[in-house]
Amino acid sequence: MTNPMLYRQRFGLALLFSLALPLLAQASEPLPSWNDGPAKKSIIEFVQTVTDQSSKDFVKPAERIAVFDNDGTLWSEQPMYFELLFALDEVKRTAAQHPEWKTTQPFKAVLENDHKALAAAGMDGLLKIVGATHTGMTTEAFDDYAKTWLSQARHPKTGKPYTEMIFQPMLEMLDYLRKQDFKTYIVSGGDTAFMRAFAEKVYGIPPEQVIGTTFITSFQFKDGRASILRTPRLAHNDDGPGKPESIEAVIGRRPILAFGNSDGDLQMLQWTAAGSGKRFMGLVHHTDAKREWAYDRKSDIGRLDKALDEANSRGWTVVDMASEWRRIYPFESPVTEQVQ
Amino acid sequence: MTNPMLYRQRFGLALLFSLALPLLAQASEPLPSWNDGPAKKSIIEFVQTVTDQSSKDFVKPAERIAVFDNDGTLWSEQPMYFELLFALDEVKRTAAQHPEWKTTQPFKAVLENDHKALAAAGMDGLLKIVGATHTGMTTEAFDDYAKTWLSQARHPKTGKPYTEMIFQPMLEMLDYLRKQDFKTYIVSGGDTAFMRAFAEKVYGIPPEQVIGTTFITSFQFKDGRASILRTPRLAHNDDGPGKPESIEAVIGRRPILAFGNSDGDLQMLQWTAAGSGKRFMGLVHHTDAKREWAYDRKSDIGRLDKALDEANSRGWTVVDMASEWRRIYPFESPVTEQVQ
Repeated sequence: MTNPMLYRQRFGLALLFSLALPLLAQASEPLPSWNDGPAKKSIIEFVQTVTDQSSKDFVKPAERIAVFDNDGTLWSEQPMYFELLFALDEVKRTAAQHPEWKTTQPFKAVLENDHKALAAAGMDGLLKIVGATHTGMTTEAFDDYAKTWLSQARHPKTGKPYTEMIFQPMLEMLDYLRKQDFKTYIVSGGDTAFMRAFAEKVYGIPPEQVIGTTFITSFQFKDGRASILRTPRLAHNDDGPGKPESIEAVIGRRPILAFGNSDGDLQMLQWTAAGSGKRFMGLVHHTDAKREWAYDRKSDIGRLDKALDEANSRGWTVVDMASEWRRIYPFESPVTEQVQ
Repeated sequence: MTNPMLYRQRFGLALLFSLALPLLAQASEPLPSWNDGPAKKSIIEFVQTVTDQSSKDFVKPAERIAVFDNDGTLWSEQPMYFELLFALDEVKRTAAQHPEWKTTQPFKAVLENDHKALAAAGMDGLLKIVGATHTGMTTEAFDDYAKTWLSQARHPKTGKPYTEMIFQPMLEMLDYLRKQDFKTYIVSGGDTAFMRAFAEKVYGIPPEQVIGTTFITSFQFKDGRASILRTPRLAHNDDGPGKPESIEAVIGRRPILAFGNSDGDLQMLQWTAAGSGKRFMGLVHHTDAKREWAYDRKSDIGRLDKALDEANSRGWTVVDMASEWRRIYPFESPVTEQVQ
């Protein structure tokens, strides 16, 4: 007969080993969806240096601020920013409450799926659509609309929920950084409230670490009920120079790591690079037409031109998606073959 | 002869006890500078409830957001907001670069110590002084000016550095909350950058948890040098309704605890109170003319009138400074007698 104490001890040891081995393997090999290419090497080397107490480039945990663009950096952004697809769907959902939209551009174009007229309306037209669907309601109501859409809408190409079209290698990077006491922020052109509707669940980034474009709000207190109304007046456009400006306004510390994918991230990268000590500047380069999309210098969405030149000339890390990422989305199987 | 091993062991034990006892005492009795009055009881009862996993009012650590006004709540605000005293001193320090100030109000009044003319210039005049001393420079330069002033200036009544005129009971409360996994924020009418110049060192509140009044900034990149210029255009006035608006914009979660001292904090308290579950709303009532100042309904600085009525009618915690605080400032000895 087995001595139950001994059995428990053995079982306990076995359990300990079975748990410890994967953890050790993981500890010795972070970023499993990244090939052992130059990007992975540069990330790990940077993190090891700034967290090494004996290094002259050691950075205290409180100052380990890492900022990430969202569209095209943490999730896909084609055929257009997912938030714009949300706005277009919202026009259709709420059209009955706005009979005037049937005859007013750019709303008429949205309701009639008239892509040509919508394109002709340009950025001004899109801003009208964003304003009409993102404001004129309380913060709580907007959060509900965004969450409902995110749970129901599907991407036209993959058929997946948008919140699954996130980049597995970047999720691993966020996790790796947080384990090394980095504070990970989103700094993106998207509406702050829209991104907060999924960032905590999907990226593990809490609302107070989501920085984006904001509208002026108005606090209301009536009959004992408090609410905050979203008005159509833009408070901050978090694109280009708006990014370092919002980083300073909200965080008040200069990041030591910044990651983007387009010219709209250039100033955030410049601001990060201009600090003293060791810094990491990264760009996702969309080079994989088969698994994701391939676009850069001439794209309307996510144009990467000046920032690519500056990255190349200053030695920033440019992630060639096709060769450096073994897997793009969490729902894919990883490519087993490693590109060296 | 003493056995050195034994000696070390005994010494080790003695050291352990001498360290452990005060820690235990502190753990069983938080908020030592608070008398055992109703305010201390309400704070402790609130914190124990929301951190008790078996309570229906349990709040997850990530959602334990506590917001504090600064002027009059964490430090004194008489004879006027300390930041205004900084602005007046800055006018004098930089007068040589602005010969036109000799003949232009309100600057002339400042340079001539003409209190009557300064008072006549009113809030508009003060805003001009704040604009002239707080903007038109980089964020780094402003931080330097603020830190230099804070290290050199002395309060006209106490002769102490302003950063020592902080409230010991509130420091203990911040510490007590953080030990219970609360995230403590400042939400105050002061300039965010001015408060960040001392908040981390003095209150243990990092820059990203300081929310205040902000000016529009402008990112500059020239000859490889990056900077952020503070412009005189107001971005956000963090007073009254501006407080819940900035809480929503920056934190994106509703606080479960809010502490203020004036009508400018009323909307922040209303927004906090209107959430579901258990909430704590507190007001510091300046009732101690001997140790600090006594003022409320008719004061120009820190007027506490409507908020006092609402606190009384809704059962919020009003801290009677004279009777509830054993010690006001860290540099004082505590009053040993306890008011029950």
